Amino acid sequence: MLTSATLDALAGAELFFKCENLQKTGSFKIRGATNAIFSLSEEDAARGVVTHSSGNHAAAVACAAGWRGIAAWIVMPKNAPAVKCRAVEAYGGKITFCEPTVASRAETAARVQQETGAVMVHPYDDDRIIAGQATAAKELLEDVPELDAVLAPVSGGGLLSGTCLGAKGQNGTVKVFGCEPERADDAYRSLTSGVLQKQESSDTIADGLRASLAPRTFAILRKNVDGVLLVSEEEIVEATKRIWERMKVVVEPSGAVALAPLLRSSGVSKLRLRKNSEHAKPRIGIILSGGNVELKC
Amino acid sequence: MLTSATLDALAGAELFFKCENLQKTGSFKIRGATNAIFSLSEEDAARGVVTHSSGNHAAAVACAAGWRGIAAWIVMPKNAPAVKCRAVEAYGGKITFCEPTVASRAETAARVQQETGAVMVHPYDDDRIIAGQATAAKELLEDVPELDAVLAPVSGGGLLSGTCLGAKGQNGTVKVFGCEPERADDAYRSLTSGVLQKQESSDTIADGLRASLAPRTFAILRKNVDGVLLVSEEEIVEATKRIWERMKVVVEPSGAVALAPLLRSSGVSKLRLRKNSEHAKPRIGIILSGGNVELKC
Repeated sequence: MLTSATLDALAGAELFFKCENLQKTGSFKIRGATNAIFSLSEEDAARGVVTHSSGNHAAAVACAAGWRGIAAWIVMPKNAPAVKCRAVEAYGGKITFCEPTVASRAETAARVQQETGAVMVHPYDDDRIIAGQATAAKELLEDVPELDAVLAPVSGGGLLSGTCLGAKGQNGTVKVFGCEPERADDAYRSLTSGVLQKQESSDTIADGLRASLAPRTFAILRKNVDGVLLVSEEEIVEATKRIWERMKVVVEPSGAVALAPLLRSSGVSKLRLRKNSEHAKPRIGIILSGGNVELKC
Repeated sequence: MLTSATLDALAGAELFFKCENLQKTGSFKIRGATNAIFSLSEEDAARGVVTHSSGNHAAAVACAAGWRGIAAWIVMPKNAPAVKCRAVEAYGGKITFCEPTVASRAETAARVQQETGAVMVHPYDDDRIIAGQATAAKELLEDVPELDAVLAPVSGGGLLSGTCLGAKGQNGTVKVFGCEPERADDAYRSLTSGVLQKQESSDTIADGLRASLAPRTFAILRKNVDGVLLVSEEEIVEATKRIWERMKVVVEPSGAVALAPLLRSSGVSKLRLRKNSEHAKPRIGIILSGGNVELKC
């Protein structure tokens, strides 16, 4: 967990960054993947695992499967960043590429599953995955118990669902907000309309946030999340740059999305947090979800 | 302090990175500057401070002077990175530019000192500075007592002198090596010849390592350092890139120099460390000295 006096001053709040970019495989995804894969029976594990992912869950499943000594088949969209594909291969995962749509991902994964007989480890529509992702916010609240709010990116909703459960399980008064690109706003649309909406495709720079909520994550978020904040592409780039420059950690655009709403003027006041008499400024946890980005040099 | 399984595998050692890039002002320099400036008498402090630096010591002096509420005049070479100049100004330091030579730096600083009456805080030829820098290695050895060696970059020798004193003060058997660009090899030449050598100018990418040893640091190093390892420009770039990609932290080329010798084949064996029976592989501390780099995006 890191802090930055400069970013505190910009946001007008005390910020506590849970640095999942420093996590094994470079993102929070290793938490859920490890929990899911080590929950398998010996018999199921022997069949290997299959999943679909734009990158970070893919690397996490390949890595966790390697730790358990089982095979991993990974379906990735053909526009996934090369650095994420290389990571999957380095961990021993076997990649099948698909079209960059939610439908193609699911169809291709189903076909690979049929061909291999492997066990599906869905990137977010899975209680074992959500429980694993929940440990990030749980650890953050253990480190900083008196947070007023926690902000996390939302894509398929595994991290945000887990953040709700992990944070509110530690402190019942903490608010939890999802942060989502305007160009991939299905979670916002689903939660405001009350009907699960799909994100058919998206070209946001936040390549890890192009998936849609699933029935399981939608149900958890309807009950537990305090709001979804939309951010523009420019705001995502600005937040990413500020984190690199000021905190000296490498974060991918998807991973920086949860800082973006707080860099707006009055960003913090719009969260309508209760005045906490013990601290002069709101105390906000931010999940920096990942750091896997292509470096050009 | 961070670790990386991938970098361990590349080096064939257990590596423990002291992340001074995550330090206040983005480098270890704040340690010495704070110690020096808060050691001043009230009377001396009221005169303000003056120094010369290619960047990180400049920002550190400006910041520490701000904490004490006194003025800071900073002489910087005109080829110092813009990001480092902006940091000095943001901390309230008043910059005077000089030619990018050791002679011009010292002359210009002497002139500014005469004009302002400020107290000189030399970047490394100062016991208070060296004592401050020593705390980085001291903390590292407190975290990992059984290190076989510590590697640190060397420029003027304040960090490396402090590393010798801080590390060997904690553990008398630990070896300490300096790491230096081939293109700015004055410390290597001084220690092998036994006569203090000057680096008149240098165009190494490691812009923080262009200074020369001073009498005080040369004396400490002659007595305490176990060797100086030279690295090429390509090796510096490679080490910098590996740290960004694998550890997900932003390190400047000067800050990555202490990893560079360990990425060579047989890099570790050339340190001729004693076999430590308790651990299968050598345990090596690496000081990542700073993270102030211009980001282009």
